[in-house]
Amino acid sequence: MAKLRRLLIGAPIATSQASHERLSPFFGLPVFSSDALSSVAYATEAILGILILKSTAGDTSLLNIQIWISAAIVALIFIVAISYNQTIHAYPNGGGSYIVASENLGETCGLIAGAALLVDYVLTVSVSVAAGVAAIVSAYQNLNHLIVPISLACIAVVAWANLRGVKESGVVFAIPTYGFVGGLMIVIVLGAIKVMTSHPVAQQVYAMDANNHSLIGTELSAGMLFIVLRAFAAGCTALTGIEAVSNGVQAFKAPEADNASKTLRWMACLLAIMFIGVSLLALRLPVLTLHDGHNSQYETVLSQIAKWTFGGKNNLGYQWTQWFTALILILAANTAFADFPRLSSLLARDGFMPRQLSRQGDRLVFHNGIVALAIASGAIVVLFGGTLDNLLPLYAVGVFTAFTLSQFGMVVHWNRLREGSWKRGAVINSIGATLTLIVLGIILVTKWRDGAWIVTILLAVLFASFKIVKSTYGSVTRQLALSDAATVKTLKRETTVLLINRVHKGVLFALDYARATGLNLHVVHVAINRRALPEVQSLWEQYGGGIPLEVINAPYRSLINPVLAYIDRLLAEDPDQFITVVVPEAYSNRLLNRLLQETVAAQLKAALGKRKNVVVTNVRYIID
Amino acid sequence: MAKLRRLLIGAPIATSQASHERLSPFFGLPVFSSDALSSVAYATEAILGILILKSTAGDTSLLNIQIWISAAIVALIFIVAISYNQTIHAYPNGGGSYIVASENLGETCGLIAGAALLVDYVLTVSVSVAAGVAAIVSAYQNLNHLIVPISLACIAVVAWANLRGVKESGVVFAIPTYGFVGGLMIVIVLGAIKVMTSHPVAQQVYAMDANNHSLIGTELSAGMLFIVLRAFAAGCTALTGIEAVSNGVQAFKAPEADNASKTLRWMACLLAIMFIGVSLLALRLPVLTLHDGHNSQYETVLSQIAKWTFGGKNNLGYQWTQWFTALILILAANTAFADFPRLSSLLARDGFMPRQLSRQGDRLVFHNGIVALAIASGAIVVLFGGTLDNLLPLYAVGVFTAFTLSQFGMVVHWNRLREGSWKRGAVINSIGATLTLIVLGIILVTKWRDGAWIVTILLAVLFASFKIVKSTYGSVTRQLALSDAATVKTLKRETTVLLINRVHKGVLFALDYARATGLNLHVVHVAINRRALPEVQSLWEQYGGGIPLEVINAPYRSLINPVLAYIDRLLAEDPDQFITVVVPEAYSNRLLNRLLQETVAAQLKAALGKRKNVVVTNVRYIID
Repeated sequence: MAKLRRLLIGAPIATSQASHERLSPFFGLPVFSSDALSSVAYATEAILGILILKSTAGDTSLLNIQIWISAAIVALIFIVAISYNQTIHAYPNGGGSYIVASENLGETCGLIAGAALLVDYVLTVSVSVAAGVAAIVSAYQNLNHLIVPISLACIAVVAWANLRGVKESGVVFAIPTYGFVGGLMIVIVLGAIKVMTSHPVAQQVYAMDANNHSLIGTELSAGMLFIVLRAFAAGCTALTGIEAVSNGVQAFKAPEADNASKTLRWMACLLAIMFIGVSLLALRLPVLTLHDGHNSQYETVLSQIAKWTFGGKNNLGYQWTQWFTALILILAANTAFADFPRLSSLLARDGFMPRQLSRQGDRLVFHNGIVALAIASGAIVVLFGGTLDNLLPLYAVGVFTAFTLSQFGMVVHWNRLREGSWKRGAVINSIGATLTLIVLGIILVTKWRDGAWIVTILLAVLFASFKIVKSTYGSVTRQLALSDAATVKTLKRETTVLLINRVHKGVLFALDYARATGLNLHVVHVAINRRALPEVQSLWEQYGGGIPLEVINAPYRSLINPVLAYIDRLLAEDPDQFITVVVPEAYSNRLLNRLLQETVAAQLKAALGKRKNVVVTNVRYIID
Repeated sequence: MAKLRRLLIGAPIATSQASHERLSPFFGLPVFSSDALSSVAYATEAILGILILKSTAGDTSLLNIQIWISAAIVALIFIVAISYNQTIHAYPNGGGSYIVASENLGETCGLIAGAALLVDYVLTVSVSVAAGVAAIVSAYQNLNHLIVPISLACIAVVAWANLRGVKESGVVFAIPTYGFVGGLMIVIVLGAIKVMTSHPVAQQVYAMDANNHSLIGTELSAGMLFIVLRAFAAGCTALTGIEAVSNGVQAFKAPEADNASKTLRWMACLLAIMFIGVSLLALRLPVLTLHDGHNSQYETVLSQIAKWTFGGKNNLGYQWTQWFTALILILAANTAFADFPRLSSLLARDGFMPRQLSRQGDRLVFHNGIVALAIASGAIVVLFGGTLDNLLPLYAVGVFTAFTLSQFGMVVHWNRLREGSWKRGAVINSIGATLTLIVLGIILVTKWRDGAWIVTILLAVLFASFKIVKSTYGSVTRQLALSDAATVKTLKRETTVLLINRVHKGVLFALDYARATGLNLHVVHVAINRRALPEVQSLWEQYGGGIPLEVINAPYRSLINPVLAYIDRLLAEDPDQFITVVVPEAYSNRLLNRLLQETVAAQLKAALGKRKNVVVTNVRYIID
């Protein structure tokens, strides 16, 4: 096991070896922007998928509203980016929403922000992997039925890489990010040229659910405003990840804040250009097909655009676009694997999550957090069938909750500080906070039935768990606290109970141990199988070293209860003694041997309940 | 936990309270026949489902072959029943296939029969529950999307009842069984009258898959003989459970064998009448619709027959038929919950399965076997979507393997015995064995691609595991065996290592214990968090009773490896000493507290590997 673990995870890394690579904006962009930039792969499609529901087969002109929605989202991107730019300068040591909200708005808001971010990181993994797999499946449609297994394999690989400890290496991250950005820019430019040089034709739009029934017009009765807002809410997934830079200011070269700020500006510009470019092209394709993710002919809008631009699938341009889309999306999932364990370790250090999450493993990573994230995101992929239509409505609730709290926190921060250009900062953050709060409201209302309710419940459950965990740890600490009166007591009487089932080498070894420890030794056999009793007794006669064997009955065949009753009798005689129950165990390094063995000591320990002064221990006799 | 367990499972039952109700044939029939009789609910449909694949839309007369196939299956039922009648008289103490095959054909055949039966019991639960739920869903079609959850709930309830310990009470079992038999007889009689008094019309047959595409004629190109044999193989599921009586001869009133024999005859007759009756009626319905189990309009053939006979769904007759069908199917699942744990306890007692399966719990049931069966059958329901079309092709392979081996075993038995009418017995069993072997061949060939291959692999895996478990236990026993030289050694030096993280009441309690046991005590602190070290040291100065605190470094932040290194240093000094590592633990009865705690002792124990003479123990300080 230990060898296997080393092979998979690698040799330990000393604390002193922790590296601190400092990034320039050029390399910082790939490290912090994959989540934000990769949303171009699904945001446009999400907007169109809503608008089509209210279009009619004869008239799909409603889809053109998409441009205006996209423009609104780009405006929002810049406002949020400018607002977070304030945070970069105010919290140069890294201002995650949990920290900013906790410090300025108090514990409750901090915990809500923390819960929102945790949920959001889980969804980032699920959504990014689902979108990455969608890019591959669009290129190779015969893989369609393998969506869920491929997604789980991707999560497993990313989790494994993070357990080994991925350095957030700018060079390694640069290739997929700039490969994606470059590919998409070429698509946009070539596509624009092709649009302008070809004869304009009326676009044919199809939208099919899993059973090939048309989705067009299935929500004609819905209000126009509601549909537009719902489409806007769907597009807001483009903003996820925009806060990443402000969490990692310290990773930049000096002057840290300025370089981070520059990276944030670049990211916002690239995101805006690609998002608008894709949105414009989507409506110029001669044939646009929107499929339900379960439809066997599913193809992403981005794949359709690239196919049309490059004139087919069998060419470098198309393959480049699809593979780099998949790569940057996997990278986006990877950033969540850095952020989730880090945030949960902060929450664990503050006592709001299990302490196990705050332990760095021997590879310098928070391994428990990585495993927890992999399980949670994998479960969500399975539960929602690995399709974006199902997953996207859950997304963005958490992000906008964190945005809003973080920025209101900044407003309080400025008002408290009242230094330098604090008024300007307060105004900018107020605008950002108000807008993101409004957007959060829109998202909650329009996506409520599609999944926002699930996220809301999850947030409430997480918040409650934080509180419960905190109070549990608090109670433990209070009960263990040393008063001045506490001191080491005088020695107590020590009793050892050796439990034997049959008589074999392992039992004699344990007898050896028990005689070495206990002055007062009882050897006890529980007679579950009465037919075997004479043999046990005669063997003990021969090998037991003259110590008498006490036989106790098991009228209910259970081993545990008679032993407990025996312990209670001993404790009744002298409540102040320590009782050590020794259970012999034949131990083998082979996992199979251990699975085939009965775990008497563990069962006994679990059954002890509140009995004081009782210690259960396994004495292991090593076999092959 | 213990209280919750008592509430759910009930108070312990003493071995002496084990009841031995003796059954008359009238009450024995319900106890042993539910599995066999309930197959009427799906066997006819299974045959028609195959034949329709080779029919054409214009000509579904091929379906009429179903009567001849049913007749052949009824003949097979009687032959197998007569053959098992021999077993009843030869093995009045109960002659399960595992015992008969082991005793007469040797270990290998016995284990194959055992594996076949285990697989079969798991499938009995899955198939019976799926068919029971299908009966309910046919009556209430809006429940269609809940098939899997309802099935899992049924399995959970039956498992829970068996964990409490269901008495195989004749009276309780009689109600669903005779309710089902009575209801079905009324359907058959009324249906027959309705057929004879109504004008004959040409039957309309529809068959739809999940997407409402017609299934008719989808295998036109298959060979005629192959399709007929495949339909026959599908119908052979009607024979499952026919051997049950021969396993439980001792449950009958004296004369046991005669009463068991009588019950078997009754069962065969009732099964034959109901099976033929349903098969005849199915082809006289004006409209017959065969649906894929995933189709949202799925309705069983039996439900269609009852609906037509009683003229609708809202009447006592129809509801009676559906609910009693569901009940007898749940009862059939229940019998597997008695048989699987019993057989696995036999295999465990013989060392072929983990010993844990041979332990009777305090409610006199083999609880581990019950839990294992519930998990396995639940997993199969989930994997196969809870639909009979998917599950039935797996069924019957195991049964016919066990039939064949058991009856060949009987042939050997007669030849060895050569007493009384042994020649007659040998001839009957030879015929039975040969026929069931041929049927097994047909099932394997015709159902191979539909799922028989899965069962074949499962059988091979189970067989291999039996062998591996046996050899593992054998190796453990050999290594632990006492030689005459074995004796208790002289006392060794005893060292205690107390591991402390912080200094609190629990640590002082453990120190108290450690001082009481060890003459040679080391107190060790692993400095993972170096900033906390001064506080730990100064507190220890104050409360540590003058014992020096040894601080060891953790360059890799892991607690476990530095401790192992420390132990190795101690062992290097004196390999013959016993080292007891004491880990203080704050213990609470609250599950949450325990989950939030780090399991240092368990981790340390797991990491010890082959280090000899090292004992790890938790000293628990009780908190609320």
